[in-house]
Amino acid sequence: MACNTYHVAHNIRQPLASLYNSEASRSFIATFPARTGSSRPLSAATVSCSRFTWDDVVRVSQPDYLPHDSTDLRGYFEKIKICNRGSQQQSDFIPLIVEDQIVGCVNNLFAIQLRRFQDVFVHSENNGNGYGSYVSLNSKLRTPEERTRAVGEVIKCLGEEELIPGIRNELYPVSSSFGAPIFFSLERAAAPYFGIKAYGVHMNGFVERNGKKYLWIGKRSEVKPTYPGMLDHLVAGGLPHGIACGENLIKECEEEAGIPRSLSSRAVPVGAVSYTDIDGYRYKRDVLFCYDLKLPEDFVPKNQDGEVEGFHLIPVTLAANVIRRTEFFKPNCSLVIIDFLFRHGYICPEYHGYLDLLRSLRSGLS
Amino acid sequence: MACNTYHVAHNIRQPLASLYNSEASRSFIATFPARTGSSRPLSAATVSCSRFTWDDVVRVSQPDYLPHDSTDLRGYFEKIKICNRGSQQQSDFIPLIVEDQIVGCVNNLFAIQLRRFQDVFVHSENNGNGYGSYVSLNSKLRTPEERTRAVGEVIKCLGEEELIPGIRNELYPVSSSFGAPIFFSLERAAAPYFGIKAYGVHMNGFVERNGKKYLWIGKRSEVKPTYPGMLDHLVAGGLPHGIACGENLIKECEEEAGIPRSLSSRAVPVGAVSYTDIDGYRYKRDVLFCYDLKLPEDFVPKNQDGEVEGFHLIPVTLAANVIRRTEFFKPNCSLVIIDFLFRHGYICPEYHGYLDLLRSLRSGLS
Repeated sequence: MACNTYHVAHNIRQPLASLYNSEASRSFIATFPARTGSSRPLSAATVSCSRFTWDDVVRVSQPDYLPHDSTDLRGYFEKIKICNRGSQQQSDFIPLIVEDQIVGCVNNLFAIQLRRFQDVFVHSENNGNGYGSYVSLNSKLRTPEERTRAVGEVIKCLGEEELIPGIRNELYPVSSSFGAPIFFSLERAAAPYFGIKAYGVHMNGFVERNGKKYLWIGKRSEVKPTYPGMLDHLVAGGLPHGIACGENLIKECEEEAGIPRSLSSRAVPVGAVSYTDIDGYRYKRDVLFCYDLKLPEDFVPKNQDGEVEGFHLIPVTLAANVIRRTEFFKPNCSLVIIDFLFRHGYICPEYHGYLDLLRSLRSGLS
Repeated sequence: MACNTYHVAHNIRQPLASLYNSEASRSFIATFPARTGSSRPLSAATVSCSRFTWDDVVRVSQPDYLPHDSTDLRGYFEKIKICNRGSQQQSDFIPLIVEDQIVGCVNNLFAIQLRRFQDVFVHSENNGNGYGSYVSLNSKLRTPEERTRAVGEVIKCLGEEELIPGIRNELYPVSSSFGAPIFFSLERAAAPYFGIKAYGVHMNGFVERNGKKYLWIGKRSEVKPTYPGMLDHLVAGGLPHGIACGENLIKECEEEAGIPRSLSSRAVPVGAVSYTDIDGYRYKRDVLFCYDLKLPEDFVPKNQDGEVEGFHLIPVTLAANVIRRTEFFKPNCSLVIIDFLFRHGYICPEYHGYLDLLRSLRSGLS
C-alpha cells in the first residue's frame, strides 16, 4: 500500500487547477484512513497509513469521487459522533463543586488519585444535599488566587507523573457559566480531567469570487503535539483566562495566519457550536465561538508560529465533500465548518436529517 | 392617553430620513404596550391601547430612546419567553401515539372531549407499556387517507362547537419527525390541540447599502385573524402537507411580497429556530426554517394577498432595538430575527448571556 507523503511548502498556494486535475481514486477512504488525533488509541492499521497529502485532499473532494452523495448527511453525523463519545460513561463521574456551584465533574477513579491532596481537594459522600458524592476545594482556599496556586501545584505533580499529559502552561477560567465570576484558573491540559467547560474561537476565512465561495484550509504541522498533519481552520485557538473572544481572535489571526488587525477586526461573530466527549478520565465540555471573515481575493495567509504546514483555498462545496467523506479535519473543526455550511445554504431543509444535524451541533451548550 | 393610529399606505416606502427625525418619546413602552396576539387573553390596559403606527416604530427604535442598551440581551430573552410559556403544565398532557410512535400530546381535559369519538380516538390507561395513559387512533383506521378523513370529521365537529377555533382548511402532515413517513394529515388550526409539531418558513429580506444592512419589515393587516397590526417578516408561512420548504418559500414570496421566482430562488436556507408554548389545551411545538434573501437595493415588495398593510426598510441595528424594546413583532418573528442578529454579528460573545440566548432559540428542536 503506497503511503507517500509530501509536505506542501509553507505559504505556497498551489494552482488549484493542477491539483483538481489529479485522477480520483475511489479506494482512497479504505486505504487512507486518517488519524483521529494523538490523544486517541489508534489501531495498527490506522497508524500504518495515517498521513495524507494535499493531493489526497483534492482527489477525495472531487464531485465524481462519490457522485450523488451531496444530499447525504450521514458523513456529517459521523463527524459529530466523533466529537461526542462516551455518553454512557456519564455515571462514572461525580460533580466538582465550588461555592455551591457545579463547575465540572471528575471520574470516580481520578477522584481517588486526588485523595492524596487533602489540603486542596475535599471528598464528600452522600449527605442529603442533593448532589450525592462530590469533590470540592478545601474551604481554606478562599480567593481565586489561592485556589489557582494550590490547584496548580497538584496539576504540576500529576503532570510529572504523566497522569495529566501535555501540560501547556496556559490557564483557563473556571466559573459556573461563561462570563460569570471566576472561581479559579486551571491549566488548559487539566480542564477535561476536571470536566471544566472550555472555550475556544474558530474562524472560517473565506473568499467570494464570481458569486462562488472558497474556504481557506490549513494543514497542521507534523510536529504539533495534538492532531499533527490534520486539516484545520484558517485560525483557531483556545480562550485563555483574561482575554475577550474578539480580542483573542485578532491575536490568533496575527499569529496563525498573518492576518493584520485591519482585516481581522472585520471578523463577524456568528454563533457557537459545542460538544461533550467522555474518554477515560477525561470529560471534555467544549464551546467554540464561531467567526466568519470574508477576505480579499488577493490575500494569502502566512503562518507566523510554525504550527501550520500550509494553507490552501478550496471551494466550499469541495471542502464539504472532504468533511463528509474523510476524517482529515481535526474533529472539532468539522463542527464549525458544518455550522458554516448551514448558515451559507450548503445544507438544505430538504436533506434527510436536517433538523437532527442542526441540533447535534450544539450538544451540551449552556 | 393618545392612541391615534394611521395606516401606512400599501407599498409606499416613506423616506426614512423623515421618519427617523421624529422626536423620541421615552414613555412609549409604558403607554403603548403592543397586543400579544389575538389568541391570548389581553388585560384591559393592553387592549385599550394596543395599536401602534410606523411612526411609533421609528421613534422607539432610535439609539437615543434608550441609550446604552445595545449590549443588554434581556429584551431578547423576554421575547423568547413569550414564545415558550407553560412548561410547568407539561404534566397535564398525555401522549398521542400512532403506529407505536409518539407524534403529539393531548391535554387530559381535551382528551375527555375526544371520548365521544370512539370510532376515531382510543384511550388507553396505564398498561405497563411505558407510556402510561395515552391517546391513539382506532386501529380500524389503517391508511393515512382513512385517518385524515376520520380525524378531519372530528375536527370539523369540534370547530363548529368552537372548541377548536379558527379552522383554516389547510392540512399539516403528522409524522414522528420531519421528513419521516406521514401517518395522516391534520387541519392546521388543530395542530396545537394535538401537540403536533408544526413547521413554517420565515424569510429575512435584507438590503446592503454601503456596507450597512437593512431589513424589510412588514406590518400585518388590521383585519388578519391572528396578530393583526403587528410587525412581521417580509415573507413567512406555515408549511402545508406535500410541498418542500424551498418551493413553499418561493410561493409565499410571490403571494406575500410580490418577489418573483428569479429573485426568491436565491433565498439561502440558514438554519431553524423552534419553541414550545403551552396555553390551556394547546401545546404548540413549532419549528421555523429560516431563510435570508439579499434583495437588490431598488426592489420594493408589493403584497398580493391583502394580508400586509405595508412594508418598510429599516436598518438592522434599529430593527434590533424594536425587538428588544417592544412587543410590536409577532412573537415568533422575534426568534427568527434574533437568529439573524446572531449570524450577522449584531450580537457578540462579549454580551452577557450570549450562549444562553443562542441555546434558547432552539428549545425543543428535534
